[in-house]
Amino acid sequence: MDSMRRLEEIFAHFPGIGPRQARRFAYYLIGKPQAFIKEFIQLIETVKKSAHECSSCHRLFITEVRLQHTDSGPRCNICTDTSRDCSVLMIVSRDSDLESIEKSGAYRGLYFVVGGTVPILDKEPEKRIRLKALLERVSQSPELKEVILSLSATADGEHTAAIIKEAIGKIAGDNLTNGKRLNVTVLGRGLSTGAELEYADGETIKSALKHRE
Amino acid sequence: MDSMRRLEEIFAHFPGIGPRQARRFAYYLIGKPQAFIKEFIQLIETVKKSAHECSSCHRLFITEVRLQHTDSGPRCNICTDTSRDCSVLMIVSRDSDLESIEKSGAYRGLYFVVGGTVPILDKEPEKRIRLKALLERVSQSPELKEVILSLSATADGEHTAAIIKEAIGKIAGDNLTNGKRLNVTVLGRGLSTGAELEYADGETIKSALKHRE
Amino acid sequence: MDSMRRLEEIFAHFPGIGPRQARRFAYYLIGKPQAFIKEFIQLIETVKKSAHECSSCHRLFITEVRLQHTDSGPRCNICTDTSRDCSVLMIVSRDSDLESIEKSGAYRGLYFVVGGTVPILDKEPEKRIRLKALLERVSQSPELKEVILSLSATADGEHTAAIIKEAIGKIAGDNLTNGKRLNVTVLGRGLSTGAELEYADGETIKSALKHRE
Amino acid sequence: MDSMRRLEEIFAHFPGIGPRQARRFAYYLIGKPQAFIKEFIQLIETVKKSAHECSSCHRLFITEVRLQHTDSGPRCNICTDTSRDCSVLMIVSRDSDLESIEKSGAYRGLYFVVGGTVPILDKEPEKRIRLKALLERVSQSPELKEVILSLSATADGEHTAAIIKEAIGKIAGDNLTNGKRLNVTVLGRGLSTGAELEYADGETIKSALKHRE
Repeated sequence: MDSMRRLEEIFAHFPGIGPRQARRFAYYLIGKPQAFIKEFIQLIETVKKSAHECSSCHRLFITEVRLQHTDSGPRCNICTDTSRDCSVLMIVSRDSDLESIEKSGAYRGLYFVVGGTVPILDKEPEKRIRLKALLERVSQSPELKEVILSLSATADGEHTAAIIKEAIGKIAGDNLTNGKRLNVTVLGRGLSTGAELEYADGETIKSALKHRE
Repeated sequence: MDSMRRLEEIFAHFPGIGPRQARRFAYYLIGKPQAFIKEFIQLIETVKKSAHECSSCHRLFITEVRLQHTDSGPRCNICTDTSRDCSVLMIVSRDSDLESIEKSGAYRGLYFVVGGTVPILDKEPEKRIRLKALLERVSQSPELKEVILSLSATADGEHTAAIIKEAIGKIAGDNLTNGKRLNVTVLGRGLSTGAELEYADGETIKSALKHRE
Repeated sequence: MDSMRRLEEIFAHFPGIGPRQARRFAYYLIGKPQAFIKEFIQLIETVKKSAHECSSCHRLFITEVRLQHTDSGPRCNICTDTSRDCSVLMIVSRDSDLESIEKSGAYRGLYFVVGGTVPILDKEPEKRIRLKALLERVSQSPELKEVILSLSATADGEHTAAIIKEAIGKIAGDNLTNGKRLNVTVLGRGLSTGAELEYADGETIKSALKHRE
Repeated sequence: MDSMRRLEEIFAHFPGIGPRQARRFAYYLIGKPQAFIKEFIQLIETVKKSAHECSSCHRLFITEVRLQHTDSGPRCNICTDTSRDCSVLMIVSRDSDLESIEKSGAYRGLYFVVGGTVPILDKEPEKRIRLKALLERVSQSPELKEVILSLSATADGEHTAAIIKEAIGKIAGDNLTNGKRLNVTVLGRGLSTGAELEYADGETIKSALKHRE
C-alpha cells in the first residue's frame, strides 16, 4: 500500500477518528509547510522519549529531565511529591480521569491507574485492569488508611469497583493492615453540575438528598 | 384562519413541538377513527375537570372524587397525608421535579412548587416564582425544622436557590422559628448515575470526594 | 387506569412522542384555562368533522363547506381544480410529501397518495400501499400521458417506486393508453439544496453532472 | 511551554479536533510502542516529501517517483492523463471534492481546485480562492468548450459559483474562445440519495421535477 493510504490508515486508528477524517488529517499535514512538519515530528519524538509509565501509579508521565532509574523504575511527580498524603490511595481507570481529579484540586493523596474498566460479564478482569499490581501496591503499603474507588458512575464503572473492592477485601485482615482497618470508599453520588432534577434517576436523588448540606 | 391551521398552531405551542410536528399531530388526529377522537376529547375534559392546584404545595393534582372545598381551597394527597414528615419542606421548580423525587421514594416530607426558575439577571423574581406564597407558607409553619432547596444544578437553578435562601433568611429569626433555628439545605452534588469521571467538573468532583462513603 | 394515565398514554402514541413528553403534554393541557381547553376540543371536533379522504387522490383534506356526496365520494380541491393538468399524475407516499410539492409551486398536475412505502423484503406490498386503487385510477384515465413517481430517494422509496413501476408496466399496452405510450418517470437526482459535494455519493454526483445546466 | 502541551496544541488544530480529543491523541501516541512511532514519523516524512501541488489543477498529489520538473512545475496524474477530455474543466473547492467526483467515475474531463469558498459578504474573494490562476488557466486554453462549476449547494458554494461565473464571463468573448462560445454550467439540483421528499425545499423539488426521467 502506498504511504498516503498507510498514513490515513494510521490516523483512522486514532481515538474517535473515522476514515474520512483520517484522510482529512493526512491532507492537512501534507498541506503544511516543511517547518511545521519538522516541529511536529520532533515533538512526537521528544514527547515519546520523555514519556514514562510511573512504576508506582502506572500513569504515563512526561519528564524532560534525565531520570536516574531506580530498581523499581521511574516514578512520576505525584508519587514523588512528599507533600501528598500517602495514607490515601485513589483508584482510577485512566490517566484522563486522574487529570480531571488533579484539575479539581480537591485531592491531595496518591493514585493508582488500573488502566481500564471491566465490562459486565467479562470473565477475565485481570486482563482488563492491573488487579495484581494493585493488590501488591496495597499490601505493601502499611501506611494506607483508605482506598478511594473513583470510577465512573456507569454500569462498567460500578462493576469494576465491585471487583476491586472484593479483591482488596480478600487481602484485608492480613499483616498489611497490622490491626488497623483499611477503609475502601467510593465517590458520592448526587447531582452533577448541569444536571436537571427532572431527569435524575432514583439513586442520584437518594444520594443528593442524603448529602444535602 | 381555518380550523386546521388553528389546530396546528395550538399543537405548535405544546412543549417542545415545532410547526412541522404540530402539523403531523393534526393529521394524526384526523386520521383516527371517530371513537378515538371521542375518547380523547372526553379524557381531556375529565382530566381538566378533575385537576386542581393544591392550595398548600401548589402542584397540579388529579382527583376524580368530589372535593369538599375548605376555605383554604383543595389540598393534594401528599399535603393531606398525615404520615408524612411536616417538619421538612422541599422546594422544587415544577411538578415534574416533584414527581421525580416521589418516584425515588427517598423523601417523606412535604413540598412547595415555586412554579419555575429565575433566570440570572432577571429583575423581578417574584414574577417568575411563588416567592410571596412560599414565605407565607414558611412563616406560618412553626413545625418546620428544615427547608430543602431541590433545584436543578444549573445556572438558573442555583440562582433561584440563592434568591429563595436569601428571602427565607430575611424572615428567619422571626417568631416563626420561636427560638429554633430553621435549617435551609441544598441537594448534595456528586456523580450523577451514568456520569463519566473524565467529564466531571471540579465542583462535582469536590462534592463526590467529600461525600464518598 | 385513571384518566390522567390514559391521556398520557394517548399522547405517547402521537408521532415522535415518548412517555416523558406525553406526560408534559398532559400537564400542559390541564394547566391551561378552561377557555383554551374548550377551543382546543371544538377545533378537534370541527377538523375531524370536516376531514375527508379524497376518493380520487386519497389525501386527507379539510373542507368546512357541506359536500354533496357523489357516488364516487368526496373529492379534494386539487382533484376538482379544472385548471390543473389531468394528463400528469404524481404518485407520493404521504400527504406531507404532497404538501411539500404543492408548497414548491413547481407542479400543476394531479396526485395519487399511495399511503406509505414498501420496506425492502416486504412480501405483501398491497398491504402497505394502495396499489390496486392506483392501478384502477391509472387504467381508468385515458387522458394520462405521464405518471411521476415522487418517492423519497431512500432504499424504501426506491423499492416502492420499482414495485409501482412494474405494476403499471403490466397494465400498460392495454386499451387504457389506446395507442399512446404512458410515460412513467422518477424525480431527478442531484445535489439537494444544502448538500456538500464532498459527502455526495456516486449516484448523486452522476445525476448532478448529467443534469448540469 | 513543554513538549506535551505543544503537541496537544498542534493536534487541537487538526480539522474538527477540540482540546480534549487533542489530548487523547497525544496520550494515544505516547502509549504506542517505539516501532509504531518510528513508522508514523517516517510515513509523514515520506508523504510530505512525495506531495506536490499540481501546477495545472492545484490539487495536492502524492507521487513516489522522481519528478522531472518542467518549467511549469509538477503536474498530477489526472492533468497528464491524455485520455481525459481537455475540453471540459471542472472547478471544485477542495481536493476532497475532486476525490468524490473521481470516485463516482462520472467525469472524464480535467479539474481546477480553487482552494476554498468565498463566504457571503467577503470583500476579497481573490484572497479566498485562486481566481487569478483560474482565469489564466481558462484564457490560455482555447481547447476549452465547457467549464463546470462543481460547488456545494450551500450559500457559500453558490456565492463562490456566482463570483467565478462572473469573472469568467468578463474574459469571455476574448480571443481565448476565438469565436466559439464557452459554456459555463453548474451541477444540477435534485434529490440527493437518502433525501426524504417531505423535507426537500422548493428549489430542490423544482429541479428534481425538471430533471425527472
